[in-house]
Amino acid sequence: MRAEIKTVGLLGGGVIGAGWAARCALNGHDVAVCDLDPEAERKVGEVMTNARRAWSRLTLAPLPAAGSIRVVKTIEAAAEGADFIQESLPEQEALKISLLARADKVAPPDVVIASSTSGLLPSRLQSGLAHPERLVVGHPFNPVYLMPLVEVCGGARTGDAAKQSAAAFYRSLGMHPLLLRKEVDGFVADRLMEALWREALWLIKDDVATAAEIDDAVRFGPGLRWAFMGTLLIYRIAGGEPGMRHFMAQFGPALKWPWTKLMDVPELDDALLDKIVAQSDAQAGSASIRELERLRDDCLVAILQGLRSRDYAAGAVLDRFEKGLWASAHRAEFDIDGDLSKPLRLYETRVEPGWVDFNGHMTESRYLQVFGDTTDALLRAIGADHAYHSAGHYYYTVETHLRHLREVEGGTPLHVTTQILGVDDKRIHLFHALYRSDNGTLLATAEQMQLHVDMRASRAYPAAPEILARAQRLASAHRALERPAGSGRAISLGR
Amino acid sequence: MRAEIKTVGLLGGGVIGAGWAARCALNGHDVAVCDLDPEAERKVGEVMTNARRAWSRLTLAPLPAAGSIRVVKTIEAAAEGADFIQESLPEQEALKISLLARADKVAPPDVVIASSTSGLLPSRLQSGLAHPERLVVGHPFNPVYLMPLVEVCGGARTGDAAKQSAAAFYRSLGMHPLLLRKEVDGFVADRLMEALWREALWLIKDDVATAAEIDDAVRFGPGLRWAFMGTLLIYRIAGGEPGMRHFMAQFGPALKWPWTKLMDVPELDDALLDKIVAQSDAQAGSASIRELERLRDDCLVAILQGLRSRDYAAGAVLDRFEKGLWASAHRAEFDIDGDLSKPLRLYETRVEPGWVDFNGHMTESRYLQVFGDTTDALLRAIGADHAYHSAGHYYYTVETHLRHLREVEGGTPLHVTTQILGVDDKRIHLFHALYRSDNGTLLATAEQMQLHVDMRASRAYPAAPEILARAQRLASAHRALERPAGSGRAISLGR
Repeated sequence: MRAEIKTVGLLGGGVIGAGWAARCALNGHDVAVCDLDPEAERKVGEVMTNARRAWSRLTLAPLPAAGSIRVVKTIEAAAEGADFIQESLPEQEALKISLLARADKVAPPDVVIASSTSGLLPSRLQSGLAHPERLVVGHPFNPVYLMPLVEVCGGARTGDAAKQSAAAFYRSLGMHPLLLRKEVDGFVADRLMEALWREALWLIKDDVATAAEIDDAVRFGPGLRWAFMGTLLIYRIAGGEPGMRHFMAQFGPALKWPWTKLMDVPELDDALLDKIVAQSDAQAGSASIRELERLRDDCLVAILQGLRSRDYAAGAVLDRFEKGLWASAHRAEFDIDGDLSKPLRLYETRVEPGWVDFNGHMTESRYLQVFGDTTDALLRAIGADHAYHSAGHYYYTVETHLRHLREVEGGTPLHVTTQILGVDDKRIHLFHALYRSDNGTLLATAEQMQLHVDMRASRAYPAAPEILARAQRLASAHRALERPAGSGRAISLGR
Repeated sequence: MRAEIKTVGLLGGGVIGAGWAARCALNGHDVAVCDLDPEAERKVGEVMTNARRAWSRLTLAPLPAAGSIRVVKTIEAAAEGADFIQESLPEQEALKISLLARADKVAPPDVVIASSTSGLLPSRLQSGLAHPERLVVGHPFNPVYLMPLVEVCGGARTGDAAKQSAAAFYRSLGMHPLLLRKEVDGFVADRLMEALWREALWLIKDDVATAAEIDDAVRFGPGLRWAFMGTLLIYRIAGGEPGMRHFMAQFGPALKWPWTKLMDVPELDDALLDKIVAQSDAQAGSASIRELERLRDDCLVAILQGLRSRDYAAGAVLDRFEKGLWASAHRAEFDIDGDLSKPLRLYETRVEPGWVDFNGHMTESRYLQVFGDTTDALLRAIGADHAYHSAGHYYYTVETHLRHLREVEGGTPLHVTTQILGVDDKRIHLFHALYRSDNGTLLATAEQMQLHVDMRASRAYPAAPEILARAQRLASAHRALERPAGSGRAISLGR
């Protein structure tokens, strides 16, 4: 199947189709989306606005230039010229089959056609195609531009190449493709969601809990754990030291208890429908769908970033994706022989959720952490790396003079510049400046003295000649720079 | 019911009981936990270690001094003298009824007795009690020391006072009590979990997905959204602009589709049990339960902090809890009219496990954190407390001069002394010294300038007269002290 994807053809521009449009465009793909709704352009544009906003908070990694999004009015116009086709039409089997067949007619046979269906069987969806081997299910989750999961499922006549090719494409979008081993109605995730949903409907119907109470029972409880470990691993931990067999022995019997009404499906009559709608309205209060979407996206971004700090679950997906972006951006790493006519720019980060105090501002000690990480980057750059440290020598901070100039809020992108003020055989005297990356405001400065130490003897000791040479080359170059304002200060009330 | 809770009696010290012990002790309560396991002391201690570690990462707010945990060997020894009793025995109705009755006999009638049962009915649990009106269900989630949800459910004879009193106690522990309107088997959360679990068992039994794949289908997909919005609100958003009725019209029909096998319960025979255990072992790999617990806790902390940055869902619970801690932090930690002939000793702590670098030494920025916490203690002591801050004025650190003199290892006890070098109407000039408490070695010093700020106008502003008077009284007393060595320094290579 086609390896290089430039243009993506989207069949359907509803909530899911527009989410695909945004995710693809943000990853540099040009998109043609077919939708007959006269409002399609506005609606797709609004999703793209949400997606841009979310991604600007999600990652500092260098994204490619965004692709274009074009709304077209026929299946053929979307499918022609596309390197990958994704269908996100309403969940009506006959409709999907007939429109997929039209796309199949105009797309070259090495173009994958994927369906976003939540639960229809690919063996049936491929039934009207001349090239059924290229039809896969690629089932995403809303909002498509933020959620990592996409279930990849083939039908009886789907080729392995199509599945692998779709998975690779989704991975390139920062998603986590889950390749399913069997074709079943509802796949895996929707079967689990549907089970929860049917039980929720019973709880509402029987007046055990309202919509808001059911959501609270999830989000203050099991939902927090589902976000990173799912169900099985969490239960394993609950079993304690004796493990999974112990858990099953302890909680297995509950399977026989009347803990769900799942044996039956509630009738979705007008009375139940009205009740759900009224409770949902009450729960949402005055918040519009757009406001709820932004709140949802902010929470997803916060959770993804939180999990990234643990490099686990969805955070590991994000971390890998960002590393790939950094690597492929061929970013000019600090070149000791390059342009040294300005302070170095060695370190960027953003204010992590755990760094803020009760005011929502970055807490005092995190400023020093950022400066310390920058010093580490400088030391690596002059060759005082992990191997050097393991061999028994390293630089330690003996003195720091910090000035806090501005507060900064959670999520703000930061970078640090570094000027070398002086070097001798045992010491490096340096000056860091911390800036907001979005508007260039100077937030804080740190002047530091680094002392080179023989760790075994626990005393100051001259640095290795090659380290010293690099440090001195920097110091000579920076000697031409102006002495930074705020350096050389002592603290005084000025009396 | 009893309003002031000092001592908590716990019946059962397994995973849930030990979690209660840790949560209560961290919130300053003395705990007596009854457990017959000869290993109980070790197991409870390990949970407490996990809990301390998690809370040291979760919050910077000032917790009360931790309470004591005592393991006892009879129900009576745990229940006598307790102001609140929480039962977390195995899920066997007859056992619970008989042991709850023993606690009921020795506890005064104004003491609430709560059961941690996941799904047994309170009307039955209270059947053997002389004071059934004080029996409530308070159903927590594992790990109890981090999860906010606790389902509060009364039986037919439970008094409203007991429910309200239990909810207030749980809230004081930083939890979110969900008061249930009806008594049903499995309450709300476990019915939803059980539905998901039964479907997961079918997927494993039918070889549709493995344990790890089911967890991936949750944690990369719907689980991320369940963590903060639950189910109903997420579906409302999925309905897009037309709202919940539209969503129901679109996805309601799926209720009739064969999307779950929930109408039936899989037989938990040896074959299914062996399969689940083997898949769970494969999923866990070489990670021990303790390692999995720490990973789980780290992820929960990261998610709670992420959601706190949005002040939503579980993050809003944490935010409220922390605000309460700040507000109730005791102001008078030293006597402003007492002996001021020495530097103040305002703050003690020890080097937490998460504070050390790969060398096992306290990392640079944590020195500043300890000094910052000491400054907060000083500010509270002169009356610049949470209420003063809420009213719009506060001191901010504008400049810090740190000297690192000695390394210090994890676990070392620390204390800080503080000397006031000068005060004017907008500034406090101070000098902190950090010592090892076990041998008195000086580890580091921090000279700081604090600036008093009008937060609304974002500019320097004179402190309130009563704050200023206290600061000046300190400054006058300390004027007689020798100027500390290392104060007034600027950083220089000395050329």
